[in-house]
Amino acid sequence: MKVVVVMDSFKGSVTSMEAGEAAKKGIEKAYEKSKAPSVKVLSIADGGEGTIEAIFYKTPEKIQKSQVHGPLFGEKVWAKYGQLDEKVVLEVAETSGILLVEKEQLNPWEATTYGLGEQIAQRIKAGARDFLIGLGGSATNDAGMGMLYALGVRFLDSNQQSLGYQLKDMASLAQIDVSQILPELASCKFKLASDVTNPLLGEQGATYIFGKQKGVKLSEMAEIDQLLQNFSKLTKEVTHTDYVNYPGAGAAGGIAFSFLSYLNAALVSGFDEVAGLIHLEEEIAKSDLVITGEGLLDAQSLMGKVPIAVAKMAQVYQKPVIALAGGTSKDAYKCNEMGIQAFFPTIRRIASETETLQTATTLAAIQEAAEQLFRFAQLF
Amino acid sequence: MKVVVVMDSFKGSVTSMEAGEAAKKGIEKAYEKSKAPSVKVLSIADGGEGTIEAIFYKTPEKIQKSQVHGPLFGEKVWAKYGQLDEKVVLEVAETSGILLVEKEQLNPWEATTYGLGEQIAQRIKAGARDFLIGLGGSATNDAGMGMLYALGVRFLDSNQQSLGYQLKDMASLAQIDVSQILPELASCKFKLASDVTNPLLGEQGATYIFGKQKGVKLSEMAEIDQLLQNFSKLTKEVTHTDYVNYPGAGAAGGIAFSFLSYLNAALVSGFDEVAGLIHLEEEIAKSDLVITGEGLLDAQSLMGKVPIAVAKMAQVYQKPVIALAGGTSKDAYKCNEMGIQAFFPTIRRIASETETLQTATTLAAIQEAAEQLFRFAQLF
Repeated sequence: MKVVVVMDSFKGSVTSMEAGEAAKKGIEKAYEKSKAPSVKVLSIADGGEGTIEAIFYKTPEKIQKSQVHGPLFGEKVWAKYGQLDEKVVLEVAETSGILLVEKEQLNPWEATTYGLGEQIAQRIKAGARDFLIGLGGSATNDAGMGMLYALGVRFLDSNQQSLGYQLKDMASLAQIDVSQILPELASCKFKLASDVTNPLLGEQGATYIFGKQKGVKLSEMAEIDQLLQNFSKLTKEVTHTDYVNYPGAGAAGGIAFSFLSYLNAALVSGFDEVAGLIHLEEEIAKSDLVITGEGLLDAQSLMGKVPIAVAKMAQVYQKPVIALAGGTSKDAYKCNEMGIQAFFPTIRRIASETETLQTATTLAAIQEAAEQLFRFAQLF
Repeated sequence: MKVVVVMDSFKGSVTSMEAGEAAKKGIEKAYEKSKAPSVKVLSIADGGEGTIEAIFYKTPEKIQKSQVHGPLFGEKVWAKYGQLDEKVVLEVAETSGILLVEKEQLNPWEATTYGLGEQIAQRIKAGARDFLIGLGGSATNDAGMGMLYALGVRFLDSNQQSLGYQLKDMASLAQIDVSQILPELASCKFKLASDVTNPLLGEQGATYIFGKQKGVKLSEMAEIDQLLQNFSKLTKEVTHTDYVNYPGAGAAGGIAFSFLSYLNAALVSGFDEVAGLIHLEEEIAKSDLVITGEGLLDAQSLMGKVPIAVAKMAQVYQKPVIALAGGTSKDAYKCNEMGIQAFFPTIRRIASETETLQTATTLAAIQEAAEQLFRFAQLF
């Protein structure tokens, strides 16, 4: 029997690869050595944090770091990027990520994507033209103003005076000047890895849906949404594009909107992109059983998160899929209808969240759950 | 495929039968109707609370109630008993149980087994001579003084003055008078269902090991143990028996000691006794797979609790056994070496203890765990 293990990271607890390796250990422990199935572990991500690590797991030497301004600008951060042949892989989480900011410091009016623009410019100067950018996990709601500024776009008020590039500057914004934009951008190709389908504006938009976790107060939502609307109108005037309602334009605090409007980017499924790079489909085709999973398996999993995406891929090849999740919600049973034959929470006992989410606890739980399942399997 | 489900109760949450029925529902849900295995649920207990319910699950009309004095004497309680042919089944938990007392009211100096003696006397008057008594779950540490008193034994101080029958009276105890003991007791047979092997006295005895949960303060342990020692010496003088160090004499606050010394009782394995009455062995022999379980599967399970007892019985017939437990401790893996092929916690997610232990939550968890396991089983 050939088993492929391809689990999403358990956010805040273990990486995709760690989770998969723990499952593999458990499976192997369940069998006498000669009878153990072959287990192959792949590292996966969906465009969020961990995308670079997932893609370059087996070639860590291709991961490098460059120094750019962080999400609150003042502090510089070392942001990872990866290089796969001609393609550069970046993550907004690395330059402008929410995990780079203390929770109390979160401030949508100041948080900026400038660092991502800086890193793109650095890579362009080094000769890169082909980019894959993971959009998950940003601390920003600036619709990409910071990034555009770092790439040469200038923002002006009604008196033609230069403005900054933070959300707080957007209130005075009257004109956008693209005359000094980095010329090499015209020959660049940007793929945005994201599994978000929200538009830029409105109740399903970046601010209303994702603003809260970035520190947007409920009382500010309407105002900020209005500012982004103004930004989008001025963008339309200068780019002659209209991506306001494009599905996914609201990803990463609206940075996707600017990528689409100014940089001719294409939104791709983060999962599909990473799956392609790690040859997931070929591995599934060769397998007899696929094991996927994530930290919490719930109804949201039905909307494009890793386990369901894996299940869909496996269905094409009629391979059975099971899921090991840290925990499962009350509606997780819907996953059974979406191609996951069976799912198993790995949590072992009543304990505090802190204790349960500890890396060592999680790894031991995954390993034991897998071991017991495959001991059980041998009864049939 | 024939499956026998025989799970212990999840204490404080669901009964043995409820747990088993939930597992059965889950298994049946996992299959297309025509392919579902036959699942037989049995109700089990080990002599603790729920013993009467387990034995008489299918014949509830054989369960009756009689009114006796409760563990704190003042209040009367309706205590269940069951009648199976000639045999009467009683539970110390029904007459003198720890669940009958508010935690703050627990008081070993006053808590009495008088009610159990009363109930025995009632049944004797009704013609019963054959008793099975479940010893688990008592609130008492009176070494059975209360029960003996209700059966006619009298306690005297050094001035030949009559004493009460609570632990607090034991300090003045100088003589035990059995001359007025109920004469029918001589023709009675008592089996004590218990899985405790502790002696009456000392660091492994009733007071030191089980006293704390009954409200014995650490500072009182030595004093109470000394009182019980005095009681045992006087007992020896009058009964010419010596059960002080008999394994199990310390069960139910030492009531087993008095049963052994005065009533010629026999200690039996609670599990074996109930298993015999529900014909568990025959059912296991006819099955292909046995499912057992309990609230918390841990190292203690290795010492005679239901799951391991079931596993031992199944091993004789070479039937595989799996366990579904509410939670599993870190050392639960030792159960694999004791004949449990695989074990699965049914807990689904991080939640408070209160929420996790709710009856509805527990039943849903057991059902889903069983369903997902048997969906998984169909892959092999």
